[in-house]
Amino acid sequence: MEAMQRKLSLMGEQARAAARRFARISSSKKNEALQRMAQALEKRENEIVAANRIDLQAGELKGLSRALLDRLMLDSHRIHEMAEGLRAVAALPDPVGEVVRMWTRPNGLQIGKMRVPLGVIGIIYEARPNVTVDAAGLCLKTSNAIILRGGSEAINSNRTITAIISQAAHDAGMPEGCIQLVDTTDRLAVDVLLRMNQYIDVLIPRGGAELIQKVVLNATIPVIETGIGNCHVFVDEDAEMAVAERIILNAKTQRPAVCNAMETLLVHAGIARQFLPRMVQKLEEKQVEIRGCPITREIVPQVRLATENDWYEEYYDLILAVRVVKDLDQALEHIFQYGTKHSEAIVTRDYRRARRFLQEVDAAAVYVNASTRFTDGFQYGFGAEIGISTQKLHARGPMGLEELTTIKYVVYGDGQIRE
Amino acid sequence: MEAMQRKLSLMGEQARAAARRFARISSSKKNEALQRMAQALEKRENEIVAANRIDLQAGELKGLSRALLDRLMLDSHRIHEMAEGLRAVAALPDPVGEVVRMWTRPNGLQIGKMRVPLGVIGIIYEARPNVTVDAAGLCLKTSNAIILRGGSEAINSNRTITAIISQAAHDAGMPEGCIQLVDTTDRLAVDVLLRMNQYIDVLIPRGGAELIQKVVLNATIPVIETGIGNCHVFVDEDAEMAVAERIILNAKTQRPAVCNAMETLLVHAGIARQFLPRMVQKLEEKQVEIRGCPITREIVPQVRLATENDWYEEYYDLILAVRVVKDLDQALEHIFQYGTKHSEAIVTRDYRRARRFLQEVDAAAVYVNASTRFTDGFQYGFGAEIGISTQKLHARGPMGLEELTTIKYVVYGDGQIRE
Repeated sequence: MEAMQRKLSLMGEQARAAARRFARISSSKKNEALQRMAQALEKRENEIVAANRIDLQAGELKGLSRALLDRLMLDSHRIHEMAEGLRAVAALPDPVGEVVRMWTRPNGLQIGKMRVPLGVIGIIYEARPNVTVDAAGLCLKTSNAIILRGGSEAINSNRTITAIISQAAHDAGMPEGCIQLVDTTDRLAVDVLLRMNQYIDVLIPRGGAELIQKVVLNATIPVIETGIGNCHVFVDEDAEMAVAERIILNAKTQRPAVCNAMETLLVHAGIARQFLPRMVQKLEEKQVEIRGCPITREIVPQVRLATENDWYEEYYDLILAVRVVKDLDQALEHIFQYGTKHSEAIVTRDYRRARRFLQEVDAAAVYVNASTRFTDGFQYGFGAEIGISTQKLHARGPMGLEELTTIKYVVYGDGQIRE
Repeated sequence: MEAMQRKLSLMGEQARAAARRFARISSSKKNEALQRMAQALEKRENEIVAANRIDLQAGELKGLSRALLDRLMLDSHRIHEMAEGLRAVAALPDPVGEVVRMWTRPNGLQIGKMRVPLGVIGIIYEARPNVTVDAAGLCLKTSNAIILRGGSEAINSNRTITAIISQAAHDAGMPEGCIQLVDTTDRLAVDVLLRMNQYIDVLIPRGGAELIQKVVLNATIPVIETGIGNCHVFVDEDAEMAVAERIILNAKTQRPAVCNAMETLLVHAGIARQFLPRMVQKLEEKQVEIRGCPITREIVPQVRLATENDWYEEYYDLILAVRVVKDLDQALEHIFQYGTKHSEAIVTRDYRRARRFLQEVDAAAVYVNASTRFTDGFQYGFGAEIGISTQKLHARGPMGLEELTTIKYVVYGDGQIRE
């Protein structure tokens, strides 16, 4: 434990020193570094593929699933995509230094609220090695030092990638230690990281529910929670049925294994008899398994009966819970009770109910007549995404570059003192 | 433990339900409630004074210091001030519902970023019973439910005050349970509160360093850290000496026991011999004890020698550490090493060094030619203050009403789906 603490403290100190040196580095220098990192990845593709092969072989021996092995795999195309990601980040505007508001007090003090880096960001993530490049690029763009802790399955890939990009960044004049990887698969490292308040300003866990819970419950450093979603679509009494159908198919089947996919469909009792038979048929054509409330089963008897558990479930799969509700209030009540405050949608033509839904649902993103699948940094036009925050502090919903900054007040005086 | 958990869970459920009902309550209704709460405090002054007397007597028996007893004491004038505080909050603009940005995507989706309440806020605080009214008013104004946990010394005062204001709020149509006090002095209650993730969105500890550390290290709920400050003033080589003198006297002596008071003075070597003798004399006239570095003692030999510890110390008292530094870089290095990122000031006439100081110092507030004492919600023109955040996540520096809100994305579509 102590040896690990010493080792990580050293990394922390280097990261803190790097974060400090960022204050004197211009945007154009940072963009140049991002370009050099992209180039280096492509140029040293063979090294990455070789390291990745070791991880893949170890993964096969360990019996990782096909899906996990696929996520882990890097080839020429995927390496090119990672490089293109860095180039896209280079092209975005730099939020650091933006003065979002400036005002003058009666005593003449001029006060500005300026965006500045968070400092040192710790990212704890699982299988996919592209997160290494992605997170490093976004943090460098926002002048944050980063400490990466990837999954043990990808350790060789991550080690090689980090060596390549941190070397390229350093060659381009970035501070030494601004991109570091915790180069061990020892689980102790995570326990130590979670309590390094002296060195790390924010922790962002990216991965499954178990990882996120572990970080939230054990970290003493501020955490940005990401990625859990039990999302609902409510079809109102006078919804346009074709619109509802399209949105539901999209929200459930376009990519079911993500946090902004729909998990429960709520249907107004006044439209259920007309709407459900055809909707269920369309869903079943797409291999969606339906679990319905008793009223749903009266209308479409072939579906399985939903249990209380189904309302809580985030399937991340082609399964959908369906409940008939008597009105908007019951829909709101259901969302309040079972929702995870991620993304919620209403399909309606009624102005007043649309307004009420937007007003009364407490979630990161609330939609009228659109798919919940839009909750995403790229879809919102941020040009980047470090994750989707499901907490209320600091950042909520898709997090882009701005969410990797904090503010400081810069105050210009002429000798003012407080009376 | 279990009984306490049940009791607090019940409070949490009520708070969550109240937070939800706030979504349908207008600003004007909330302002009316704040007025009614103010009236009720003044009308029922005698009850408050009587309850406060019990606390004061118990405090005397326990041997509380004069200063603590004074903080605890409520009289007609202080009750009137609390009521006026509520009226001032009523008069401020309501940040809830403000759409800070709205844009339209190429696919026609209209996306708005709207300020919404945080939900349920837990405040853990010490002696002063005025915090009860203050925090309850700010949370009500921002449609947040509040769970208050005050110090055991003020339990009777807090109980009476909470009964009065929550009754008045309820009479004015506010949701039941929107203002609740943890009505026990059992320390177990705090341990339970710190882990009530299911019910509480944010915890704000207000009080001494020990309380804040306890909350930061043990809470699983997001915390906003407040109030620790080791602030510096750096007098540059070509500072105007009269300006430096005025700022230093103000930053050190106007109110030494607060977090934005100066603790260490840094003086450029090029001006130290001219500047320090007179400055030290002026400070000593104000009863300030000086602890100087060796060079300082060469110039003003009567002062005590500072130890390494003094650079870390937050005295909150009429004591000042003084160090002569060879240039701006050494001043920046000192602030980086010993500072707590609260408030830092430079006194200079040099344009370039002013800009470098603003750019390179990482703190909630950075000043050129002004006193660090300005770091305050009222001084910044926010009209209110719930504390001064010394962390980087969510809020940094003085927190007004806006900092008691989060955002949600409201998205208007016409049937858009993700391709």
